[in-house]
Amino acid sequence: MVDFNDNSHRRYNILTGEWILVSPHRTKRPWQGKEEDVTVEERPSYDPKCYLCPGNERAGGHQNEDYKEPWSFVNDFAALKNDVPQAKFKSGLLKAESESGICKVVCFSPDHSLTLPVMETENIDKVIALWQKEYRELGKKTDINHVQIFENKGAVMGCSNPHPHGQIWAQRTIPQEVAKKNKQLREYWSNNGVSLLAEYLKEELQLKERIVVETEHFVALVPYWAVWPYEVMIVPKKQHKTILSLSEEERKDYAKIIKAVTIKYDNLFKTSFPYSSGIHQAPTDGQDWDCWHFHMSFYPPLLRSATVKKFMVGYEMFATPQRDITAEMAAETLRNLADTHYTKE
Amino acid sequence: MVDFNDNSHRRYNILTGEWILVSPHRTKRPWQGKEEDVTVEERPSYDPKCYLCPGNERAGGHQNEDYKEPWSFVNDFAALKNDVPQAKFKSGLLKAESESGICKVVCFSPDHSLTLPVMETENIDKVIALWQKEYRELGKKTDINHVQIFENKGAVMGCSNPHPHGQIWAQRTIPQEVAKKNKQLREYWSNNGVSLLAEYLKEELQLKERIVVETEHFVALVPYWAVWPYEVMIVPKKQHKTILSLSEEERKDYAKIIKAVTIKYDNLFKTSFPYSSGIHQAPTDGQDWDCWHFHMSFYPPLLRSATVKKFMVGYEMFATPQRDITAEMAAETLRNLADTHYTKE
Ligand SMILES: O=P(O)(O)O[C@H]1O[C@H](CO)[C@@H](O)[C@H](O)[C@H]1O
Ligand SMILES: O=P(O)(O)O[C@H]1O[C@H](CO)[C@@H](O)[C@H](O)[C@H]1O
Repeated sequence: MVDFNDNSHRRYNILTGEWILVSPHRTKRPWQGKEEDVTVEERPSYDPKCYLCPGNERAGGHQNEDYKEPWSFVNDFAALKNDVPQAKFKSGLLKAESESGICKVVCFSPDHSLTLPVMETENIDKVIALWQKEYRELGKKTDINHVQIFENKGAVMGCSNPHPHGQIWAQRTIPQEVAKKNKQLREYWSNNGVSLLAEYLKEELQLKERIVVETEHFVALVPYWAVWPYEVMIVPKKQHKTILSLSEEERKDYAKIIKAVTIKYDNLFKTSFPYSSGIHQAPTDGQDWDCWHFHMSFYPPLLRSATVKKFMVGYEMFATPQRDITAEMAAETLRNLADTHYTKE
Repeated sequence: MVDFNDNSHRRYNILTGEWILVSPHRTKRPWQGKEEDVTVEERPSYDPKCYLCPGNERAGGHQNEDYKEPWSFVNDFAALKNDVPQAKFKSGLLKAESESGICKVVCFSPDHSLTLPVMETENIDKVIALWQKEYRELGKKTDINHVQIFENKGAVMGCSNPHPHGQIWAQRTIPQEVAKKNKQLREYWSNNGVSLLAEYLKEELQLKERIVVETEHFVALVPYWAVWPYEVMIVPKKQHKTILSLSEEERKDYAKIIKAVTIKYDNLFKTSFPYSSGIHQAPTDGQDWDCWHFHMSFYPPLLRSATVKKFMVGYEMFATPQRDITAEMAAETLRNLADTHYTKE
């Protein structure tokens, strides 16, 4: 039997139907490349120059509410707008169509100094409640067929403001990554009559090799087909198509596991860990999505330390995503980290 | 008619069958995020500490040849190795298989101070000749079914050594991105009996909206479906499945257009422009690939200046690639730039 812990291999992603390349022996190579800056700045609870702090003026000229709880507003520089007229263009081999939508910003807290791992669980719970409200209201609109909730955390992840916040881009068409999952989930559902992710969770809970944190209602694990070095997926044990059907108890538990995962992240390299996270859930196009099982993924770029990240470049762009440590190694490392934030020890 | 220069829309990529989102109005947003460092260091022609300079010792303990021409060697820290035994693994929903291959490093020049845009055309021609040799020899091996030639240029693109060099990763399976193109090219070929890219080139040469440089045998353009801000694709006018069938004259012309494109890149922000480039060509699996039409793509991350790049993060990772300027604007900007390198004016 070939030892996949020591030999390059491909793994299959059941959610997208794609393969990724794993080269476990590769971390042995020396690194003489780019080192990221570590920002260890202490941030104040209120920054008069921050365009997301309560009461401040934004670049667009609007004034923020004096909010005390998680708060959302329409992005002043939205990539998607809802007043775009529908049009299709085709000429020879050129094909395009207009896209409309709504982009919102979700401030997680009025406190400029916070991040999810250092927020109180009950305040993360309020963020989830706001995500639910947004998903419900945006999804109800007839021309919104998909609602993408996400967060870019850290300057390396293109985040232009350290105030704790995420975004929501809701749109008419189904985005690419979601379309892949729709297909895979639906296929499994119609062949087996059960949720693909529920079956997968069962298997992972038996094997226990890739589990990072388990709570009463949720599991956080490094998926078998993870691309990013410390990629993590949070999945509800019960099949929920979207975040809307969570009970209050489950929602609180979801907040708890988000905090637990992000604490481990910060503890890994004793730094405020950068990542992009996103929640994939059933489209809001009114179709039958009984096959869906929502999940939240974290794609963090750091590989070796607070300053050395994994670059998804040449080979990865032109060929196939490639990772240097196995999902099992990453999960073990994360699992063994402390549950208390390193700044609070 | 909706003005796509001012309204968000989706464009279809004929080569991959995927869509991308274009938000032309979005460059108006202010940028307060991460700025990259600009490295304006003058490099010596020989650096005794560089592990790619002629005669030097590499990290792996090997000594470089005292090479005078483009030179290649097997990567000391290869992600793919050719002694991996074939094995397939399947257990429940987990699926994997071993992957084997060969990774090589291609030094473009013995001169540590150079980059493609400042190299002589005849020396770029020698690089192409070496790519041909490698593609031919690697592709001939029975267990190598795809040969990916690429370059990561610049620290932002994960390049760990500024010595002018690229890489080749040759492997048993067909990588994801290539598989998509195989499908699209083959489909068009069997439906129409002509090369999809040849037809596309015809259309672009008539429209002249996205052409950046045209030489006798090649066209460099910003593809209609470009993802990266200043993405460029170099395509031979005559349908060549791979770089092997280029005549000597065509090869020289290919060198010329590589130089022309990379000079424009450097001139754009008066900096050594970072990018990942790669050549997509027919697989070497012995199948009939009459549909193939090789092309070289450049994926450069810079968006607004030498220090502000486009981040492909949250939305782009979870939903769909998204760009802020149109392909037409990018092409016009590049087209209008000087043909002489800014350091040589
Ligand atoms: O092989 P290098 O130059 O050390 O490494 C670079 O290119 C590789 C191939 O695209 C990537 O996997 C690495 O993340 C990147 O840092
Ligand atoms: O919207 P922001 O935070 O200004 O911008 C950030 O997130 C967007 C959505 O993922 C990306 O398109 C941008 O490249 C990134 O810098």
